[in-house]
Amino acid sequence: MPFQPLCENSETDMINHPLHVSPDKLRDFCIAILCSLGVSMGDATTTADVLVEADLQGIDSHGVARLSYYVHNLASGRVVAKPKIQTIWETPTTATLDGGGGLGPPVSVKAMKLAITKAKKYFVGMVAVRNSNHYGIAGYYSALAIHEGMIGFSATNSLTLVVPTFGSKIMLGTNPLSLAVPGGKRGNFILDMATSTVPIGKVEVFDRQGKEMPRGWATDEFGQVTVNPSMVLHNIYREQYCGGGLLPLGGEGEETSGHKGYGLAVAVEIISALLAGAAYSDLVYPRDAEGKPLPAGIGHFFGALRIDGFRDPLAFAQDLNDLLDRLRRSPKAAGRDRIFTAGEKESEIRLQRSRNGIPLHAKVHAELKKLAQELEIPAPWLFPTMEV
Amino acid sequence: MPFQPLCENSETDMINHPLHVSPDKLRDFCIAILCSLGVSMGDATTTADVLVEADLQGIDSHGVARLSYYVHNLASGRVVAKPKIQTIWETPTTATLDGGGGLGPPVSVKAMKLAITKAKKYFVGMVAVRNSNHYGIAGYYSALAIHEGMIGFSATNSLTLVVPTFGSKIMLGTNPLSLAVPGGKRGNFILDMATSTVPIGKVEVFDRQGKEMPRGWATDEFGQVTVNPSMVLHNIYREQYCGGGLLPLGGEGEETSGHKGYGLAVAVEIISALLAGAAYSDLVYPRDAEGKPLPAGIGHFFGALRIDGFRDPLAFAQDLNDLLDRLRRSPKAAGRDRIFTAGEKESEIRLQRSRNGIPLHAKVHAELKKLAQELEIPAPWLFPTMEV
Repeated sequence: MPFQPLCENSETDMINHPLHVSPDKLRDFCIAILCSLGVSMGDATTTADVLVEADLQGIDSHGVARLSYYVHNLASGRVVAKPKIQTIWETPTTATLDGGGGLGPPVSVKAMKLAITKAKKYFVGMVAVRNSNHYGIAGYYSALAIHEGMIGFSATNSLTLVVPTFGSKIMLGTNPLSLAVPGGKRGNFILDMATSTVPIGKVEVFDRQGKEMPRGWATDEFGQVTVNPSMVLHNIYREQYCGGGLLPLGGEGEETSGHKGYGLAVAVEIISALLAGAAYSDLVYPRDAEGKPLPAGIGHFFGALRIDGFRDPLAFAQDLNDLLDRLRRSPKAAGRDRIFTAGEKESEIRLQRSRNGIPLHAKVHAELKKLAQELEIPAPWLFPTMEV
Repeated sequence: MPFQPLCENSETDMINHPLHVSPDKLRDFCIAILCSLGVSMGDATTTADVLVEADLQGIDSHGVARLSYYVHNLASGRVVAKPKIQTIWETPTTATLDGGGGLGPPVSVKAMKLAITKAKKYFVGMVAVRNSNHYGIAGYYSALAIHEGMIGFSATNSLTLVVPTFGSKIMLGTNPLSLAVPGGKRGNFILDMATSTVPIGKVEVFDRQGKEMPRGWATDEFGQVTVNPSMVLHNIYREQYCGGGLLPLGGEGEETSGHKGYGLAVAVEIISALLAGAAYSDLVYPRDAEGKPLPAGIGHFFGALRIDGFRDPLAFAQDLNDLLDRLRRSPKAAGRDRIFTAGEKESEIRLQRSRNGIPLHAKVHAELKKLAQELEIPAPWLFPTMEV
């Protein structure tokens, strides 16, 4: 079966997969797993959709590969299965929701939809969320605005993995942000990016492959750039964290403007965590005196903006199509035959995977099998060598 | 006189200046120059304030160094001295202004103030501007919201200088964005960054010094990274543009995530130019059949957001102080003794220059003297060796 990894998140070691699964099958499986842990059908459906959408778009690091992490947190009580989601602050155009310590996706969809509802009436709506957990791909939420012909925005803080410029200790998450803009026949513009140079998953891939990392990805325990992925992972994940981590977009120091990626990461921290009154910086994902993980308490931010608050939406769509076309058609660098616009690769992978199924990485496949067995969820398609 | 260049824009070759000028003197001079070209007293005052504020903050590339460029454009009619600024679209929370082809700062201050007025009533306000010109430092406008205790945002498209990822032709401006967040006793957070790795001015400094640039700043005419600044400048500024230019934040290709800086640049292009119906991509700064520059027609975007739309502003300010403190106090990288937060360097330079005066680079000093003579504006302080 032909499978071309187009997306940066489609790791090269994932090319040859024996098992391709239909999105529906995978979604139903996630729902069954989450429901078995006490999550309501509605919340399980939303969470499954966010995970499978990531896989469909080739952002495998944020897809069903995260399911066992969600399960682990639900089983340990670190994530509340049936949270009480509350609106704790509200104005005509803004609001803050408390996620009740539940899964990230359900409260995030609720918040984004609230922002859209407010924008329908007031042209712009903005909703912050606190007391939440990992919300998956930022682009899922911003893209909800596209269905309404609006511009969508989404951002979140996350587990600390990134050192500040001139620092040696991880103080910020990879803090992604996403802007989704509805296009016309030439497709939408969906920017969805971590504010670090790379996600930790990329360091792990280079570690598995025994390769040196490019400079600009990560630092050693002294805060200095390193090309050794196993040292970085060892420093972060050892019993006692001893320094170093991912570098912000732009790399080490100020020479190639790492301070800009650092500034963007803090900006995301402020709007997604501080506006909502969520946990921030090294206060997120705390542990108790015995080292047991406590609820993450992270925050998100969602915004929706009506294009007809500024100009005729049809004229806007024409200009957007033309801009994206101009960029794609512009002269290529030597050795390159294509210029992409944000979201284009993901859209193409989505088409391919909707047709051919989602390829399951061997490690993820094994994890899902283990979950099916432990939680006694029937999924014969996970055991293709068995007679079923 | 002690002068420590703290800011990235304080070029190292500007350390030893014979002439330091008081901000007031410089402001009055700019006003007189602009008025002599037909600009109204109000617009001249606003423009002068934006320019001198850049110098005060050490962002010399956007300060009075731009005055002769403004003068040239006013004199040639490319910038309209007395523009008709019009509100062409308006809702309770949003608006679009037409700048009438005038100077960027007056319409930009007007737009940002309109966004603040809307936010006072509706908690959020957003205003787009079209048919405008170079607006100076993005942080000037976002910071206007800080005086009202609000979060401010500002972005603009600009003259094409940046190649898309995998491209060899400049298709985007350095497209800066700025987020300003009011703090407390620990200072504000003011991020003001171009979405390219560096501004063109940095390439010019390395060219003057005969130094090789770091990789990740710019490309040759084939779209491949180069360390040769004079080649890059020659390619951009020669009679017939032949390819190459600045790289987006993150550098060449996707290895160090140049596609993220490219994505940010397009995002800025969309919200600042396309929302307003302004000129975009390689359509900005057009020339007529004879090569004569026509009006730029660029666009800007301004936003204001009330913190009390989400939570108690005092609690927010406490968290922001704590976040900034945590970052600054966190362990330093080897060989580093300080971690900055966005806007901190500029704030310190501002204090220093308010006290000691603004140092005039020899080239800028010569330009101002020329302007004073040509436009017959009395400025004896520009000629300190003369008996005045």
